[in-house]
Amino acid sequence: MNNVLIQSLREWMHENNLSAFIFPSTDPHCGEYVPDHWKAREWISGFNGSAGTAVVTLTRAALWTDSRYWLAAEELLADTPFEVVRCGRNLVTPKEVAEWLKTHPQPLPLWRGEADAQLSSESEVLPLTGERREGLGLNPWAMPADYADELERELAKVGWSLATGDPESALWTDRPTLPLSTIEIHPLQYAGQPASEKLEAIRASLAEADGVVITQLDEIAWTLNLRGSDVHCTPVFVAYLVVLPTEAVLYVHQEQVTSEVEAYLRDMHVSIRPYEQISADISTGLIDAALAIQFDPSVTNLALATAICKGDTARRYYEAPSPVTPLRAIKNPVEIDGFREAMLRDGVAMVKFLKTLSPLPREGESLAPLNITEMGVDKLLTGFRAEQPGFRDISFDTIAGYGAHGAIVHYEATPETDVPLEPRGLLLLDSGGQYDCGTTDITRTIPLGPLTDEERRDYTLVLKGHIRLATAVFPEGTTGTQLDVLARYAMWQEHKNYGHGTGHGVGSYLSVHEGPHQFRMNYVPAPLQAGMTVTIEPGIYIAGSHGVRIENTMLITPHNPTPLAFRRGAGGEVWLSLSPLTLCPIDTRPIIRDMLLPDELDYLNKYHARVRDALLPRLSDPADRAWLIAATQPLT
Amino acid sequence: MNNVLIQSLREWMHENNLSAFIFPSTDPHCGEYVPDHWKAREWISGFNGSAGTAVVTLTRAALWTDSRYWLAAEELLADTPFEVVRCGRNLVTPKEVAEWLKTHPQPLPLWRGEADAQLSSESEVLPLTGERREGLGLNPWAMPADYADELERELAKVGWSLATGDPESALWTDRPTLPLSTIEIHPLQYAGQPASEKLEAIRASLAEADGVVITQLDEIAWTLNLRGSDVHCTPVFVAYLVVLPTEAVLYVHQEQVTSEVEAYLRDMHVSIRPYEQISADISTGLIDAALAIQFDPSVTNLALATAICKGDTARRYYEAPSPVTPLRAIKNPVEIDGFREAMLRDGVAMVKFLKTLSPLPREGESLAPLNITEMGVDKLLTGFRAEQPGFRDISFDTIAGYGAHGAIVHYEATPETDVPLEPRGLLLLDSGGQYDCGTTDITRTIPLGPLTDEERRDYTLVLKGHIRLATAVFPEGTTGTQLDVLARYAMWQEHKNYGHGTGHGVGSYLSVHEGPHQFRMNYVPAPLQAGMTVTIEPGIYIAGSHGVRIENTMLITPHNPTPLAFRRGAGGEVWLSLSPLTLCPIDTRPIIRDMLLPDELDYLNKYHARVRDALLPRLSDPADRAWLIAATQPLT
Repeated sequence: MNNVLIQSLREWMHENNLSAFIFPSTDPHCGEYVPDHWKAREWISGFNGSAGTAVVTLTRAALWTDSRYWLAAEELLADTPFEVVRCGRNLVTPKEVAEWLKTHPQPLPLWRGEADAQLSSESEVLPLTGERREGLGLNPWAMPADYADELERELAKVGWSLATGDPESALWTDRPTLPLSTIEIHPLQYAGQPASEKLEAIRASLAEADGVVITQLDEIAWTLNLRGSDVHCTPVFVAYLVVLPTEAVLYVHQEQVTSEVEAYLRDMHVSIRPYEQISADISTGLIDAALAIQFDPSVTNLALATAICKGDTARRYYEAPSPVTPLRAIKNPVEIDGFREAMLRDGVAMVKFLKTLSPLPREGESLAPLNITEMGVDKLLTGFRAEQPGFRDISFDTIAGYGAHGAIVHYEATPETDVPLEPRGLLLLDSGGQYDCGTTDITRTIPLGPLTDEERRDYTLVLKGHIRLATAVFPEGTTGTQLDVLARYAMWQEHKNYGHGTGHGVGSYLSVHEGPHQFRMNYVPAPLQAGMTVTIEPGIYIAGSHGVRIENTMLITPHNPTPLAFRRGAGGEVWLSLSPLTLCPIDTRPIIRDMLLPDELDYLNKYHARVRDALLPRLSDPADRAWLIAATQPLT
Repeated sequence: MNNVLIQSLREWMHENNLSAFIFPSTDPHCGEYVPDHWKAREWISGFNGSAGTAVVTLTRAALWTDSRYWLAAEELLADTPFEVVRCGRNLVTPKEVAEWLKTHPQPLPLWRGEADAQLSSESEVLPLTGERREGLGLNPWAMPADYADELERELAKVGWSLATGDPESALWTDRPTLPLSTIEIHPLQYAGQPASEKLEAIRASLAEADGVVITQLDEIAWTLNLRGSDVHCTPVFVAYLVVLPTEAVLYVHQEQVTSEVEAYLRDMHVSIRPYEQISADISTGLIDAALAIQFDPSVTNLALATAICKGDTARRYYEAPSPVTPLRAIKNPVEIDGFREAMLRDGVAMVKFLKTLSPLPREGESLAPLNITEMGVDKLLTGFRAEQPGFRDISFDTIAGYGAHGAIVHYEATPETDVPLEPRGLLLLDSGGQYDCGTTDITRTIPLGPLTDEERRDYTLVLKGHIRLATAVFPEGTTGTQLDVLARYAMWQEHKNYGHGTGHGVGSYLSVHEGPHQFRMNYVPAPLQAGMTVTIEPGIYIAGSHGVRIENTMLITPHNPTPLAFRRGAGGEVWLSLSPLTLCPIDTRPIIRDMLLPDELDYLNKYHARVRDALLPRLSDPADRAWLIAATQPLT
């Protein structure tokens, strides 16, 4: 099917004097979820995984993707022009692209006319002298500036050059339009801080620049206390924001802005300009050329960065991480209250779902056939969430992996893969909701009947890791990299491990994945701070057999020591700890009791008491109440 | 006293057109211990701590040092021209120096003649126009090139320039000479690998350069299997080594080289040149100018780096970490055997010492007065070590801190601070030996009688941390930064912490502190690898009261899982764990038994069984044997 498309692209490449073209996973805003309008890599290759980079040359085509997708991509792309290149990390490096190009030499593109002759007749054409060279094209709106810079450096080492182009506009005939959802005001009762104050905080955080360009959609939504629905599972809208000393400019599609929102923005000196104008406004000086502008080259696309750095105005500029990221990461008391409310609603939905799925049989007793598939699980759970007040959407695509599917870390059931649940083994269920007051992210692993010894052992190892990290107390300045091992210590004793991070921040009715902090093995320098949300989600995945993951969303809070502790060593340091926001029972049936230490058991029992006390007042159905009480019984 | 010296220095600064001069802690070889000959900072300021930087300007003088030395330095430097500037890290940053200079403006130096007039009459002198500017001088042999480069950049931001000079040669009248010890061959029975193979391994590890300059004395000693005694507690000699494609050149003081060593070196194509000639040989092309040279700017002094980068020959050069560091870090089987033998000898010395100090009274029973001081402890222990075969030296200055002195992390008793031990409280004892076959580093904290609840609790928290890290199993690629928290988790629960790293590599009859790996909170990217040595030494320090530290030296080894573990998750990963090399009882009397988890107790009992089995055959005195058996009784 896409043979025809690749052929058209190659003709376009000849016409544009390019030997290759690269299609990354990113879009102009460098966010996690890409609107269909910008899914050019999927358009050209057919590969729809969340991470992958396609390169089409005049004679070959390659798709890099990471271990999550190797098998699926190889199956999907068999009998297409694309070969799958296995990639160690989730993003192929510029060096790897350059070296691949070097080891797969390409003919030079033909001149216009010459190309027509060649392509139609395949007769030999004598090479012309001139400026033709091995050039790799990219769409400058689709690539972060720092990646493009590094690509240019690496290409130079192998004798290639970098060029820009837009084959999507020329060739993508059935290209989806942008959603252009109506933008809504996120009320102060949930945001907790007026947008005008946030703008001031951003201005105050700029060291040397006069203004800053914000490109990431969730950062713009957070800053202005606005929400939209342009992006899958994430309540944001497509825009750029330029914050200047006494005003700000929102570049957005006018039709998304109601008169109410326009007035709201005008009141805090935020003007509106057409989305497509940002580059021209910056480079020609409509945004005062005397103002030095700061931008983050890792999340600013090449086209916009070029307008800032190489516009007609010789504007001064500074490269620095976005000032919004650290501000947004620390939730204010109103946002924290919103999280607590969202977790209550989500907990009610989870309890109703779990009770339906698994009405607590006695140990070892099989359940009756469930008559539900993985996709049915998603539908059932989402239905319970949708009954909750303030529910807006799910916060990411539900991962419901039964048995061996549980070992596929980013599994999403499709009609082709969907299987019915059976009364044995484990169901891994990772899901979340977007509520008006907050975002949730929870994973439970649910026994559906008898388990193998290994399933029980892995479940208990994951639970031990979860609890060990959840009970950590740590001084201010500690990073997630330092604490990550606490979630792995127990399973490492048995040579088990997981390839993903242990935790990430969660937005306040925003992105389910937020930085700058993380729990992970790789070094992440951002320290953990009071007021941040963070998940704890260790796992064990046994290919072909089962998967276990247990995830709660936590709040980082100041910690007071137990009365037993002597405090003289402290010396005024601030100590932090983690408090669970998520309210949902953790299934105790798979636990191998003897593997739990006394403090681990104590934590689990206290957590369950808290879940029971919090959720019971929200449950009116006696059967739901009885289920919750049974599911939260203390272990002895 | 040093007022006169400072006055002389200022006269010299006027003559040399400098407004300030900086004296760092380093020497031409950027090692941990500096020979007296190069202790210029101590010479100019009188401050003899291991870390500190002095800056003398025409009107002021400052000494930066870290928290270990704040109080001592302020006391020592009262009534001197030096003010103590408290420094957060153990090395003041170039930016901090530049900003201090900026906030303490200096007059420009006077021209010669003008200076004489000014200094003698204090009459006003009109400023002359010309090239005089605010210049900071440094001795280019005493400063690492990367620090000097950063200093120059930071100075430029505040309008200062960097210049070089050598006031030591001009003004240091009673300067100590270099020791010039006789160099000895470290036999293959201890080194385990011929120097010729090490030279080949170094050559093979060079990516683009033809040759490499090795500046660190322990790296030169390791490479050539030579030892000396030029540096305190460390069996090295003063030299530079240049490794070239088919030969190597050792720059050393000729009088240190015996004919035997000269022949040994000649056999592997290592020639000898005068120590002082290295810079000229490199910059003028006596070392073939066609050869590209690699060096590590963090451990190469500015003078030598300048000769490489800016010599007369336009030589190509590369900056990269020393290739010796990762090679040396992984001990070969012969070196590991040597460590085991050294630990047996050191364990015997420790047992004899501990038995003398503390003949195991019953719980709560006071000891008779000990009639020994902290300095006496050092003398007694060193005496027992000196009785051991192959003993050459202590491996660092013994830290014997009784009571409140135990809370001073780098305490070294002096006649002024020395106190007698009393039959109560804790003695912190950190010590080590240099034996022909290996280096040791051990800390024990010894109860001398009744303890407070807090002392017992802190002791148990430190022990828990020690054991938790000691029992870690981890996949290849894990860094010490990831594992460090295991030593802190328990004490962090009670808001206690320590400001030093948790562990470092130990040399094989070489430096007691080796890299590149460490256990520490700050990010250290070097992964832990099988064959590396590493200490585990958590501590708690309560100012004015007591200190606890428990340290063993460990060997990193491949790990086999317990039979219980299911291995399917492993997927071919290599797993590592830590095995104690140190053989000496850990005092069980201060332990609060209920605070130990079952696996912690099990580890301690197994360790003690191993210590007993290893050391008993080396002890002939029945009293020593009885003491060891009692000290290694399992806890139940």
